[in-house]
Amino acid sequence: MATMYPRASSTGATPSEEMNGTGNLMDFLDEPFPDVGTYEDFHTIDWLREKSRDTDRHRKITTKSKESYWELIKSLLDAWSGWVVMLLIGMLTGTLAGVIDLAVDWMTDLKEGVCLSALYYSREQCCWTSNETTFDDRDKCPQWQKWAELMTGHSEGAGAYVLNYFLYVLWALLFSFLAVSLVRVFAPYACGSGIPEIKTILSGFIIRGYLGKWTLLIKTVTLVLAVSSGLSLGKEGPLVHVACCCGNLFCSLFSKYSKNEGKRREVLSAAAAAGVSVAFGAPIGGVLFSLEEVSYYFPLKTLWRSFFAALVAAFTLRAINPFGNSRLVLFYVEYHTPWYMAELVPFILLGVFGGLWGALFIRGNIAWCRRRKTTLLGKYPVLEVIVITGITAVLAFPNPYTRRSTSELISELFNDCGALESSQLCDYVNNPNMSRPVDDIPDRPAGPGVYSALWQLALALIFKIVITIFTFGMKIPSGLFIPSMAVGAIAGRIVGIAVEQMAYHHHDWIIFKNWCRPGADCVTPGLYAMVGAAACLGGVTRMTVSLVVIMFELTGGLEYIVPLMAAAVTSKWVADAFGKEGIYESHIQLNGYPYLDVRDEFTHRTLATDVMRPRRSEPPLAVLTQDSTTVEDVETLIKDTDYNGFPVVVSRESERLIGFVQRRELTVAIKTARQKQDGVVSSSVVYFTEDNPQVAEACDPQPLKLRRILNLSPFTVTDHTPMETVVDIFRKLGLRQCLVTRSGRLLGIITKKDVLRHMAQMMNQDPESIMFN
Amino acid sequence: MATMYPRASSTGATPSEEMNGTGNLMDFLDEPFPDVGTYEDFHTIDWLREKSRDTDRHRKITTKSKESYWELIKSLLDAWSGWVVMLLIGMLTGTLAGVIDLAVDWMTDLKEGVCLSALYYSREQCCWTSNETTFDDRDKCPQWQKWAELMTGHSEGAGAYVLNYFLYVLWALLFSFLAVSLVRVFAPYACGSGIPEIKTILSGFIIRGYLGKWTLLIKTVTLVLAVSSGLSLGKEGPLVHVACCCGNLFCSLFSKYSKNEGKRREVLSAAAAAGVSVAFGAPIGGVLFSLEEVSYYFPLKTLWRSFFAALVAAFTLRAINPFGNSRLVLFYVEYHTPWYMAELVPFILLGVFGGLWGALFIRGNIAWCRRRKTTLLGKYPVLEVIVITGITAVLAFPNPYTRRSTSELISELFNDCGALESSQLCDYVNNPNMSRPVDDIPDRPAGPGVYSALWQLALALIFKIVITIFTFGMKIPSGLFIPSMAVGAIAGRIVGIAVEQMAYHHHDWIIFKNWCRPGADCVTPGLYAMVGAAACLGGVTRMTVSLVVIMFELTGGLEYIVPLMAAAVTSKWVADAFGKEGIYESHIQLNGYPYLDVRDEFTHRTLATDVMRPRRSEPPLAVLTQDSTTVEDVETLIKDTDYNGFPVVVSRESERLIGFVQRRELTVAIKTARQKQDGVVSSSVVYFTEDNPQVAEACDPQPLKLRRILNLSPFTVTDHTPMETVVDIFRKLGLRQCLVTRSGRLLGIITKKDVLRHMAQMMNQDPESIMFN
Repeated sequence: MATMYPRASSTGATPSEEMNGTGNLMDFLDEPFPDVGTYEDFHTIDWLREKSRDTDRHRKITTKSKESYWELIKSLLDAWSGWVVMLLIGMLTGTLAGVIDLAVDWMTDLKEGVCLSALYYSREQCCWTSNETTFDDRDKCPQWQKWAELMTGHSEGAGAYVLNYFLYVLWALLFSFLAVSLVRVFAPYACGSGIPEIKTILSGFIIRGYLGKWTLLIKTVTLVLAVSSGLSLGKEGPLVHVACCCGNLFCSLFSKYSKNEGKRREVLSAAAAAGVSVAFGAPIGGVLFSLEEVSYYFPLKTLWRSFFAALVAAFTLRAINPFGNSRLVLFYVEYHTPWYMAELVPFILLGVFGGLWGALFIRGNIAWCRRRKTTLLGKYPVLEVIVITGITAVLAFPNPYTRRSTSELISELFNDCGALESSQLCDYVNNPNMSRPVDDIPDRPAGPGVYSALWQLALALIFKIVITIFTFGMKIPSGLFIPSMAVGAIAGRIVGIAVEQMAYHHHDWIIFKNWCRPGADCVTPGLYAMVGAAACLGGVTRMTVSLVVIMFELTGGLEYIVPLMAAAVTSKWVADAFGKEGIYESHIQLNGYPYLDVRDEFTHRTLATDVMRPRRSEPPLAVLTQDSTTVEDVETLIKDTDYNGFPVVVSRESERLIGFVQRRELTVAIKTARQKQDGVVSSSVVYFTEDNPQVAEACDPQPLKLRRILNLSPFTVTDHTPMETVVDIFRKLGLRQCLVTRSGRLLGIITKKDVLRHMAQMMNQDPESIMFN
Repeated sequence: MATMYPRASSTGATPSEEMNGTGNLMDFLDEPFPDVGTYEDFHTIDWLREKSRDTDRHRKITTKSKESYWELIKSLLDAWSGWVVMLLIGMLTGTLAGVIDLAVDWMTDLKEGVCLSALYYSREQCCWTSNETTFDDRDKCPQWQKWAELMTGHSEGAGAYVLNYFLYVLWALLFSFLAVSLVRVFAPYACGSGIPEIKTILSGFIIRGYLGKWTLLIKTVTLVLAVSSGLSLGKEGPLVHVACCCGNLFCSLFSKYSKNEGKRREVLSAAAAAGVSVAFGAPIGGVLFSLEEVSYYFPLKTLWRSFFAALVAAFTLRAINPFGNSRLVLFYVEYHTPWYMAELVPFILLGVFGGLWGALFIRGNIAWCRRRKTTLLGKYPVLEVIVITGITAVLAFPNPYTRRSTSELISELFNDCGALESSQLCDYVNNPNMSRPVDDIPDRPAGPGVYSALWQLALALIFKIVITIFTFGMKIPSGLFIPSMAVGAIAGRIVGIAVEQMAYHHHDWIIFKNWCRPGADCVTPGLYAMVGAAACLGGVTRMTVSLVVIMFELTGGLEYIVPLMAAAVTSKWVADAFGKEGIYESHIQLNGYPYLDVRDEFTHRTLATDVMRPRRSEPPLAVLTQDSTTVEDVETLIKDTDYNGFPVVVSRESERLIGFVQRRELTVAIKTARQKQDGVVSSSVVYFTEDNPQVAEACDPQPLKLRRILNLSPFTVTDHTPMETVVDIFRKLGLRQCLVTRSGRLLGIITKKDVLRHMAQMMNQDPESIMFN
């Protein structure tokens, strides 16, 4: 009887009886068993199960809420806790971003000099408060002294230059040494950009401590140090990591999120959006970045909450106002001239450049990281950081475009030359007849400053291209956005100036004739810099929509969407031709994380039967029977294998599947039963059936009934199911494993790792087949 | 042997043999059977199957591409066809939107008068080309004559007014009569906004002809007529329908899209984005609208393509330049003043108003539409349109704010009063000491014009609120965006002027003291109008992110995101308190479309066994056996039932499931076999097994082997699976049906309609339980 489930009994049971079956399962899980419902480190979560647990929790609260007003209030609080978490995340992320901005500003300037009126002022703040300076020579104010001037009294001359140079390198080395030591000693997870790991975590992987409090603290501090040291890295990627740490921190306030890995990931997705929002001052771009690049499971509810978190974060940052201009955005620009159709040609060329640079960077960086992993190099992370910092600082100081911080450089490259601009890049020959400083300055011939700037920019470009390959992936927090944008902005500005000068000197050429009369302001080199930056960032990360939106939020003008889009799409196409993966996916692969990319399409003709374990040569699948396995058998099975769970069948002969039991819960249940339940010994039979087992003889040991931990709805597919469907199911439902059956008989099991292994195998077998997606 | 699938045979078969099994299935489908792989009207598609068919197609092309250069080129063309379709959709949608805009402008003005210099000019174009007019009295130019002036020579006086009034109503009636007649006669599907149906279609439903060429043509023409008639409706929703028709049209050019309902829906999602993009000139908002509001399956690839289509469409529209200002957006505004924290209070109040109006509108409109469906009213659609048009025109003419087109009204309400503004709304008392017209005009006391405008606006508000409830859902193309925005904009402007005057007259009040010095420009009534419009639109449609992005693209300033977001979120919360569904979901429910909303969370404790058919009282499930059913049995089964498919089991005793066969394919296969295959008669046995059936005696009729049409990987769940998981699976994998098993035995079937029915049942049982999502 126990092995049979006649149809009548199933449909004969009333629904309420049936529901009690699951009810019991839930009661069991509610018992304060340690670790039930949690996952081990470096394991994958089961999304369906998490979702179902949350629904149960929610259902319970709803039922309770009808009992009393207090419970009603509690249920309302529970319903609003999601928004509260978002508010807190937004506020903390915005605050941290503001603090980081201020600290980076101050420490970057500290490498060159110090503010005498207040030591904690950065140069800009120092000279801002000074009321002696006029607008023109704002950079030279008496309160701000370079080190040489302060120490020797001479601000000019070779000696002062060498001393400044020496101290610049020294400070850089100090900062980076501090950063790498802190990371090494306190929080090894604080290194890198963190985005590959966050992508993996969001897809359902567990990495304990990756989003912990220590990581948050150390990453925030070392990020400031790393950026200030002048290395070719940015703070944008790490800010996403910092925001996710904040998200994780606030999750622990609410059991709704702390006890459910699925719900927690919804919060983390929103936190990632807040991170990008403050990194660029682009809330919509942040949400789209989270959607396009980072998140795995992004329901509409998360979309709304992400937007809220991103807005709060941006608003908090604006309230702190680290840039002193009450602008949200990092690089505020305002262009006054439209662009012309013919300019699409250089824009698309910049897209090609961005794609090539992206592909080159990914290849080079991955090769270098692999070398770091496999050779002695990886043994000395501190030395590596010191050496790279040394080289960077020594090479960067002589060139004014690399000496300053990268974001300042990008900001200058993006800006259009106004009439009052004192930068070398704006050293144009002015027409003496030009009456007054207006916004619409016509194109002018370039002066000597522009030409020397061009040379310096070209050198800076080569320097940045090379050094970034070696910098990204070191054991310090390092983002890629800013260096990539810098490479693109330099290239773009060079192209922009070239086109501008060509248009000025050859305005009778047929391509310029239609839109560039003499005296008109037809080419905006800053726009080229922005398009170049978008192209390079797109080439490296393969973002498209979020990239364009971020750039659009920076300029605030819809007018430039088409150039940006043209460059971003070209860059993606060109880079894709050299390899489908962006830098984050490449690093995920390099580190071997079990990440099932939503973008990879599986187009092979294999079936579930080709992937499932056991293979033909392997021993049969480790299964439990519903009423003939003893406690000892189970314990042996647990000891001998390392599977995460075991299917339960009616009998070894019929092989008809009735459920699946998790290894972790099985271990806990047997341990508890042995301790608490009298009569459960090694020879006790383990029962998974619904009915009470009939103990044949009195001397038989007490049976152990474990139906409560049996998952009665394991996911199954038939052996003939095409693997593309299986991949789709794993991806969309977030499964951990799936059982394979044929006409109701259990044949094998497919785990997420089997799927990933199979996909990698197939990919290598014929790489051409994935070219035409 | 045939009924047994011993394990050895399964794992003993080589993978290639196994793959041939599916290979055969594919070969069979390639045979030119009519209708194989298509769906019947008003049926649901199987997403998994569509996807798998596309992968097969793709795989075949990839294999072929290695054979010759010609095939390689063909495969490349195939890979690019997606982008080509997007380009075409963008161009056609942009063009149609431009044509519609121009036609609506001209015909709306035709109701009042005509341009003498060129009959096809609208008033603005007419007076624009006239060089006699100064900026101030641009509206009064000699070329443009009102009907009364043209016919009687008198432009003033009661007679002229009555004549103008009469002709205004007459034209309106003519336009709306034409519109409703065209819809009735040529394309009944062209009525309404189309968004509910498009949502349903995108979720996998088939409505033949809904996106056909006739619908496209008629909807475009009647949309112009309906909008020009002055009814309280907009062109934005129907433009989405028009764009989707364009998408469907271009799908038919490529077999990749025309033959695969799943791929076609990817194109339609992108087309919807293009539609909103041209409706508002907001490409990013369009993409987010498609993502948030319309689409069901929205992979990242579709995100990129949608963005491309939206950009091309916006760009094409800009090239046509229907508004004559080379702006993309419908309502271009530029505000110069920031907003203050204290203003959040009126903004949130506007949000509350928007939510209330949204809830009221949905209730009222649904009640009216239900009445239309059930009473005699529905029998006279033409009369209904005529009557409503008559009422609208008669009531609208006397009030200058309702007489003009709704988009012009919104545009005026959004605009800030500059110094040169001649509108009645900008009739402020100017300070005689004010030196020159600057952008930053300080707050001024309102003049008599403003007060009379306020009264007229209040009347217009009531009029719009009431008439829109009766207008939406009539048998003409009608969008909701514009009327909702108009209601909100009127309310917002009224509130804005009130706050402005309060701040001016009581600038010593504590709430104004901090930010509103006398002589400062502290309140922008236009911004209030915009916030109100966002709130009302949000209340009706429950959009949040896409709404804010659309509004943000209209202003182009990040500064106003917080007010917009505050209003949108408040409005959504308030409206949600009265009912979860937005207007589109309500209409989907009203029409009974099988739409599985991704936003509804299913939180009940039912199991698959409670939902599956057959119920306890019903006859057993109609199944086929793999080798003992005769052709006649099958034919009887097909005749007696109307199921879409039948499970195939090993035998009626064991009930072990081996596959699922579609009704449509079964019918076709038997018909073909009877015609072509010798010896297949009514008593022939139908075999679904792999091995050839052994014909026992020579006199036995020839068996019919149908393994090729058997789906060997039907989707199964166990009877203990919670319904929330089943709902999730249906939603995410887009299933049509799912089989229910217990320990390998087939128990029943759950179809999408069963799921929907169950959800509706549960929803009504305890409506409180869905309150706290």
